[in-house]
Amino acid sequence: MHQQRIAITMGDPAGIGPEICIDLLNDPEISKQCTPIIFGDWGVLQACAEKTNKSFDISKISAHELSNIQTPAVLDHAFINPAKFTPGTADAKTGRATYHYITSAIEATKLGIVHGVVTCPANKEALQAGGVSQPGHTEIFAEHTGADKFCMAFFSDEISCSLVTVHCGYSEVPDLLSVGRIYDVISLTRQAQQKLLGREPRLAVCGLNPHGGENGLFGNEEEENLIIPAIEKARGEGMELLGPLPPDTAFTPSIRKSIDAYVCMYHDQGLIPVKALAFEEAVNVTLGLPIIRTSVDHGTALDIAWQGKADPSSLKSAVRLAVKMCS
Amino acid sequence: MHQQRIAITMGDPAGIGPEICIDLLNDPEISKQCTPIIFGDWGVLQACAEKTNKSFDISKISAHELSNIQTPAVLDHAFINPAKFTPGTADAKTGRATYHYITSAIEATKLGIVHGVVTCPANKEALQAGGVSQPGHTEIFAEHTGADKFCMAFFSDEISCSLVTVHCGYSEVPDLLSVGRIYDVISLTRQAQQKLLGREPRLAVCGLNPHGGENGLFGNEEEENLIIPAIEKARGEGMELLGPLPPDTAFTPSIRKSIDAYVCMYHDQGLIPVKALAFEEAVNVTLGLPIIRTSVDHGTALDIAWQGKADPSSLKSAVRLAVKMCS
Repeated sequence: MHQQRIAITMGDPAGIGPEICIDLLNDPEISKQCTPIIFGDWGVLQACAEKTNKSFDISKISAHELSNIQTPAVLDHAFINPAKFTPGTADAKTGRATYHYITSAIEATKLGIVHGVVTCPANKEALQAGGVSQPGHTEIFAEHTGADKFCMAFFSDEISCSLVTVHCGYSEVPDLLSVGRIYDVISLTRQAQQKLLGREPRLAVCGLNPHGGENGLFGNEEEENLIIPAIEKARGEGMELLGPLPPDTAFTPSIRKSIDAYVCMYHDQGLIPVKALAFEEAVNVTLGLPIIRTSVDHGTALDIAWQGKADPSSLKSAVRLAVKMCS
Repeated sequence: MHQQRIAITMGDPAGIGPEICIDLLNDPEISKQCTPIIFGDWGVLQACAEKTNKSFDISKISAHELSNIQTPAVLDHAFINPAKFTPGTADAKTGRATYHYITSAIEATKLGIVHGVVTCPANKEALQAGGVSQPGHTEIFAEHTGADKFCMAFFSDEISCSLVTVHCGYSEVPDLLSVGRIYDVISLTRQAQQKLLGREPRLAVCGLNPHGGENGLFGNEEEENLIIPAIEKARGEGMELLGPLPPDTAFTPSIRKSIDAYVCMYHDQGLIPVKALAFEEAVNVTLGLPIIRTSVDHGTALDIAWQGKADPSSLKSAVRLAVKMCS
């Protein structure tokens, strides 16, 4: 049986992406589970390996070899010369390179030549300086795959959360909630978990207000007007759902044991418990795309880039989850 | 050396307060650390002990004996007859009794006859039905001690959080934040932790928006306009403070290790990590009162009241913390 081919985008060349990609390629456990293919620059990886004293004995392939490869490899985009940028300083050039690797991996996945994509970190300022119109990975994937309903989620063995709203101000959240959007995130979470678990998942939906509003005592009845109707719609379609749960008691050990995934109303409602309980284990996943995409759960870490200090565990977890989701 | 006398209010007679009080009085470990005195009804405790098959061999004392007592005891208020209410059904009568125990304990503590108060759960609806004008414990304590600056906090070995805002709707939080209020909560937290630890505590203040606003990218610059000025004022007085921290990464294991207490902007920002990480261990404390007050971290649990199922561990933790804070 042939293994899944997983595209790993190298991320911003000036960040920690290159060195964690080298660590990944050097890990025999990973190549037992899939065929990892770095979408990046071979010259950059080689320079980074030298600088960080890592061994680097990986074949460079070109696009026409992709569909046959069964060993770890680098699809060389030859896009940026390691002499032309400074590690630790992301700029327009490194931003353009980052974008190039991403779109190339999306196209290869859409064509079925690779089976899923794992992304190393991009630098938002560098993307912008490089003239990329989308603010980050999620939007680039949505646009290039034509997805209209998608959401950000974090999966780990300990706790998994999907987010109804993500990168907006605290006070903008209530206006961004709607029955339709909450229902969509419930539904996307169910599909993904159903596939992963091979059974109907047990989901929980959090309230927005303290104590879930305590029957209208706190807040503007967001639970009654928005969250409960979305839950009822989902239940009407046979989904198993708890909620709306009081957010503070939703994540206690006994409730966590009985829940496969949470639907959270805002960024920190989901990410506070994810990072408190599963830091360095949780994998960022985009749900609702026609292709599989997971991601590391950290940034470019420019302050320690190319110093051999970066920890590849989040990338390895992201690869393992992508393999599981592709199966 | 005489032990600290700790007043424990029996809470709503119809709830789980009476049975956890009996468990507390029967625990020899507790009476090694302090002299626990239940402010409640001896007849109710006796009836509850019979109903739940617990041993109950505790002396009933009256107010004039209080200043000399050195063994676990019940200060009998003879306020409510166990035949006149139904366990599991809190009503106006049980609400008035709850209130009576609380105010009695506050007066005894103000007079210095007992050294601190630990409260068992009250039922908000029963208090209201009983004609009590304050919505809950914290307000009753504030009014009866004349405190004007106070805050709710949760202390545990794993994580401690103080709350700038508490029981209000999600969308009301930004308007309730002010430099003065944030500074006050920082300062109250420092005083309490300084006393507990015997050294300058290491505090962290959370931001309001995702990523702490990312330099104005998200939100209405609550970090720049409200939180940072409060932090700077506190630093000017020699306090050791980190912040504003991005809320999601504030509670990762490595940051938790270096922080004694967090100042959180809203209920769930503090209580999600507290209940995820220290459920059944965290103690609710009111900071800023002229007397020591801690509390169990659960409600009256009317559905299991007087059935012998209630867990006294939160009450025991609250008593242990009160003893520590009194020393």
